[in-house]
Amino acid sequence: MHPFDDGLTLTPLGDGRYRGRTSPAYANMVGPFGGITNALMLHAVMLHPQRQGEPVALTVNFTAPIAEGEFEIVARPVRTSRSTQHWTIELTQQDDIQVTATAMFALRRVGEGWSDSEASAAVLPGPEGAAPPEALPASPTQGLPAWVRRYDIRAIEGGFERLMAGAPEASSLTRLWLRDEPPRPLDFEALASLVDCFYPRVFLRLGRMVPAGTVSITTYFHASSETLRAQPADTHLYGAARGMEFRDGYFDQAADVRAGDGSLLARSSQVVYFKG
Amino acid sequence: MHPFDDGLTLTPLGDGRYRGRTSPAYANMVGPFGGITNALMLHAVMLHPQRQGEPVALTVNFTAPIAEGEFEIVARPVRTSRSTQHWTIELTQQDDIQVTATAMFALRRVGEGWSDSEASAAVLPGPEGAAPPEALPASPTQGLPAWVRRYDIRAIEGGFERLMAGAPEASSLTRLWLRDEPPRPLDFEALASLVDCFYPRVFLRLGRMVPAGTVSITTYFHASSETLRAQPADTHLYGAARGMEFRDGYFDQAADVRAGDGSLLARSSQVVYFKG
Repeated sequence: MHPFDDGLTLTPLGDGRYRGRTSPAYANMVGPFGGITNALMLHAVMLHPQRQGEPVALTVNFTAPIAEGEFEIVARPVRTSRSTQHWTIELTQQDDIQVTATAMFALRRVGEGWSDSEASAAVLPGPEGAAPPEALPASPTQGLPAWVRRYDIRAIEGGFERLMAGAPEASSLTRLWLRDEPPRPLDFEALASLVDCFYPRVFLRLGRMVPAGTVSITTYFHASSETLRAQPADTHLYGAARGMEFRDGYFDQAADVRAGDGSLLARSSQVVYFKG
Repeated sequence: MHPFDDGLTLTPLGDGRYRGRTSPAYANMVGPFGGITNALMLHAVMLHPQRQGEPVALTVNFTAPIAEGEFEIVARPVRTSRSTQHWTIELTQQDDIQVTATAMFALRRVGEGWSDSEASAAVLPGPEGAAPPEALPASPTQGLPAWVRRYDIRAIEGGFERLMAGAPEASSLTRLWLRDEPPRPLDFEALASLVDCFYPRVFLRLGRMVPAGTVSITTYFHASSETLRAQPADTHLYGAARGMEFRDGYFDQAADVRAGDGSLLARSSQVVYFKG
């Protein structure tokens, strides 16, 4: 079993409740990697027998650190219309709520109506002009938390090597190629995890690691399941992330994940606590 | 009483429950203006006796149209730590859930630690170079829903006059000056409404109005209550908005609201349903 599928394993307890367990393969410095938690909240909806359609929007709030061990997730369908469905989701440990989430699902009218990618790349540039992944070294993983080894990351700019240089950077932009390690077919859960693969942007700006943690992340999915299935598992996706406004101990950070041809798959924004 | 305060009026029913009523002054084409609903979800937390700190993140999901008349909002404090507090909020009418929301509040460490505005203006330019509000005409309100008359809007570019020209635009960027009409001191609720004052970006791109509605909006607050109180009530704020990715009947739209000097007060992103 792929470690990601192992980490996503949820046992149905009935009535939208599921039991899971933290995965050592996706451990972060404190608690699990935020990406797998983002994916787990989505997965509980994907598994739910009343689920209709595919994810469009997902907001996940990290209310308290998740302790190593078992947890429960409850997914509740709040409202279902002809084409949309809204959910609330909570992750608990011993009756304490560690994560809250909301999700919006829809029956996508794939290929219908007007479409355009406008100015998408203004703040987060696409892959144009980047060296291909095979021409770039794999990102260092030594001394880093376990989850980093679950991804094959090839930095184009602003990678871990810049952080390790220990000097403040004028820009917090990171561009990279990334895929699951070992390779795994792409699905919405994988994408929910990939959008959170960028370390806190404040590290890059300050040139050092400081206490920091995501408090809320919102992901918009811009691809259908057909598009995801069409991505070869062993091909790298393209990711870009950047911090925006850093003030009073919080900053916001945007990230895009694109197919190799530059088409947008998912976009996230998150607000991150930091002490620096 | 200012019409905004009238629209925000919530009667406490105990245990975090509040009763409100839709305000004709903020009516939209179908149901109330999304901005006042965004503000109401926040206001229920602001009024709650257990509230600690000020808003940092707010996500509001529009699950079904709100009918004219009474509604109830229940705000539940999910988790409180030394410096942060997480909330879930629901708006119901006759036991049906019309709106779900989550909010993160924090005791801001105002002016503490490192701060910077990085590349904030890359996708949404600031007020630099814009003509002052008094040099620009007030936006037309005739034939438009009631809520439009609750704001004094001076378009710098991409205003209603471009939409009324009836021709598709290459860019969905709108830049404008805006304030409550009549003027009202700025607070977090006003800001939560102001970030949603931009009509769906797809109208501008297609050069016509099409069926469209916000399904989820996330707002990050980047200002403290002191900063908001320091804004003179009769001064215009600056706003900018743009659509990003339009596909399969949904698009995402980003908006910034800034003080006249360009400093960021709040940033929102939303995903919008459209048929076009």
